[in-house]
Amino acid sequence: MNQPKAITPLTAPVVSYSALHRFVVEAFQRAGVSDADANVTADVLATTDAWGIFTHGTKNVRGYLRRLKAGGLRATGRPHLAAEGPAWGVVDGDSALGMVTSVFAMQTAIAKARACGIAYVGVRNSCHFGAAGYYAWLAAREGLIGLSMANDIPSVAAPGSRGGITGSNPISYSVPAGRHSPLLLDMSTATVAGGKVYAARTRGERIPDTWLIGADGKPTTDPSGYPDVGALQPAAGHKGYGIALLIEALSGILSGAAFTWRVGTWMWDDGTKPTNHGAAFLAIDTNAIMPAAEFARRMEALVDEIHASPKADGVERLYVPGEMEWARHERAMKDGVQLPPDVIASLQEAARMTGLNSAGLFV
Amino acid sequence: MNQPKAITPLTAPVVSYSALHRFVVEAFQRAGVSDADANVTADVLATTDAWGIFTHGTKNVRGYLRRLKAGGLRATGRPHLAAEGPAWGVVDGDSALGMVTSVFAMQTAIAKARACGIAYVGVRNSCHFGAAGYYAWLAAREGLIGLSMANDIPSVAAPGSRGGITGSNPISYSVPAGRHSPLLLDMSTATVAGGKVYAARTRGERIPDTWLIGADGKPTTDPSGYPDVGALQPAAGHKGYGIALLIEALSGILSGAAFTWRVGTWMWDDGTKPTNHGAAFLAIDTNAIMPAAEFARRMEALVDEIHASPKADGVERLYVPGEMEWARHERAMKDGVQLPPDVIASLQEAARMTGLNSAGLFV
Repeated sequence: MNQPKAITPLTAPVVSYSALHRFVVEAFQRAGVSDADANVTADVLATTDAWGIFTHGTKNVRGYLRRLKAGGLRATGRPHLAAEGPAWGVVDGDSALGMVTSVFAMQTAIAKARACGIAYVGVRNSCHFGAAGYYAWLAAREGLIGLSMANDIPSVAAPGSRGGITGSNPISYSVPAGRHSPLLLDMSTATVAGGKVYAARTRGERIPDTWLIGADGKPTTDPSGYPDVGALQPAAGHKGYGIALLIEALSGILSGAAFTWRVGTWMWDDGTKPTNHGAAFLAIDTNAIMPAAEFARRMEALVDEIHASPKADGVERLYVPGEMEWARHERAMKDGVQLPPDVIASLQEAARMTGLNSAGLFV
Repeated sequence: MNQPKAITPLTAPVVSYSALHRFVVEAFQRAGVSDADANVTADVLATTDAWGIFTHGTKNVRGYLRRLKAGGLRATGRPHLAAEGPAWGVVDGDSALGMVTSVFAMQTAIAKARACGIAYVGVRNSCHFGAAGYYAWLAAREGLIGLSMANDIPSVAAPGSRGGITGSNPISYSVPAGRHSPLLLDMSTATVAGGKVYAARTRGERIPDTWLIGADGKPTTDPSGYPDVGALQPAAGHKGYGIALLIEALSGILSGAAFTWRVGTWMWDDGTKPTNHGAAFLAIDTNAIMPAAEFARRMEALVDEIHASPKADGVERLYVPGEMEWARHERAMKDGVQLPPDVIASLQEAARMTGLNSAGLFV
């Protein structure tokens, strides 16, 4: 749709999920993205906010709009299967929004897993895809186990390196768990997100010595040079580094995408050029392998057992991955999403960029 | 073969790979294991020693023999496909040696991946399988990407738990890398192996506060209660914990194996009972997805780039996963395997148990 619509004013700082979703849809429509693709993208980004993962949600609409305007992202890009086999596919993203390409890729993986039991779909010519967890959950929502991962330009050290060797290379999985919400882990392979280091720098604070290496390649507690010097440390040293390389192999190498330094930075680079991010999606159809009720019963037993396990002094409950996000999601769908100030500022800028009337939206 | 053979004396502490292999074959043959299965098991365990992973190699022959004798492991157990589809299978290990079952399972995964592009094979009624890396490498040796993982009885905490929630749940991958040795990562999802904590206890030393929780569920630097109280800490906190649960889902839940506390301890439990460990194996046929030469060229570029990257002060080289193991392997095949004293003692005991003449073997 090309005709600007009036937007329901959002009452800050809490906005309803539907108003947030609608805002994102309309912003992308105004950038020339189709209704369908704008809705898919809004699904991803607003759900991510509802999970409370604000670094990867609607805050980034502004950055995606900038690239759409510059041409590095193509509003009319059509992700398509460039090659495929019974249980695998490679999707060429055609420089469409990373969210659009990734949903298409995971849906392809789900369909192929239903036929074969498991499937791998690699992605090339994509861009930043937001929160890896959304795509894993797409599979779990339909009763399958989902995994998603992506590469990025290096920002994380290897043990002994002086600078970045791998991207923060996120990986996510989601597993249906019967009457419980699906397990949902979404992690980077760095110790912490760069944003946490940057926040400490802004506040003039020291950081734990496991977060960052300095100019000499050694662990540092001084974030003042970040992100220009040094690099993030990999989670658990060689383990995080090793997993990051597996993600690079599946997302960047096998898909035919750019890898390591060949990947563009979606936020800072010349917006006219595609970033050529890679990604990988796996789906496993548990229903093909084990009766659905039995799988559900076993997953429920696992989760129930964890909930009932003895807790450390002062700890009230044990969580399985995703449980906190689902609690926030439930609250967000009922009471609205409580957007942090940086997200609001970013959405206001997105409104300005697209000519949407933002007066009164978030104030 | 049922007839005892004379064994070539091994000159301690360095033994030739072939002598070590032969010793393991004969020990298992004397326990009633077929020639073929004894050879497969020796391949796994002697290769593991050659990689320098002595905790998971021939040191454990003694423990496996004990279970074979007691009946919890079945010398004549026949792992077989209990269920299968185009790109998946579930192997019932029939309480055979975990190494025999796991090789069969990965070979099944490789064959199915060649037909479909990727395959998952879950395993139940198995036991301790040694080093996860061996099975991942089986795939890489044939040009595929391999992943292997297994569950175990809980020994690792969740964030906030007072005791063990997951097993050390190892995961491994191997990726062919052209002219380079295959990438090979084999890691537990705990911060460190329990053996390291135990060694510190034996030496009366303190440990870093990221290794262990104490009786109150809080991090401790005191290993004196290990392993009776507390639990290992998960690698990188919720990240290691989350990955351990994915491994549990794929190895323990979806395969129909025992999971968490239902798994037997292979080393300490009543040897008459099967442990019913679970495992999972994935293979991805890169040749189906991308021309072999292109995949090799891209992996070589990745490894070369890492090798050429700037190093931290005092660091001579950067490694990719498995590179140290392959260097040790090359040396071991040329100059022999330098067995640590605890491995030698264990092999002497294995010799005694099977009536093999160990006099002069390792002294």
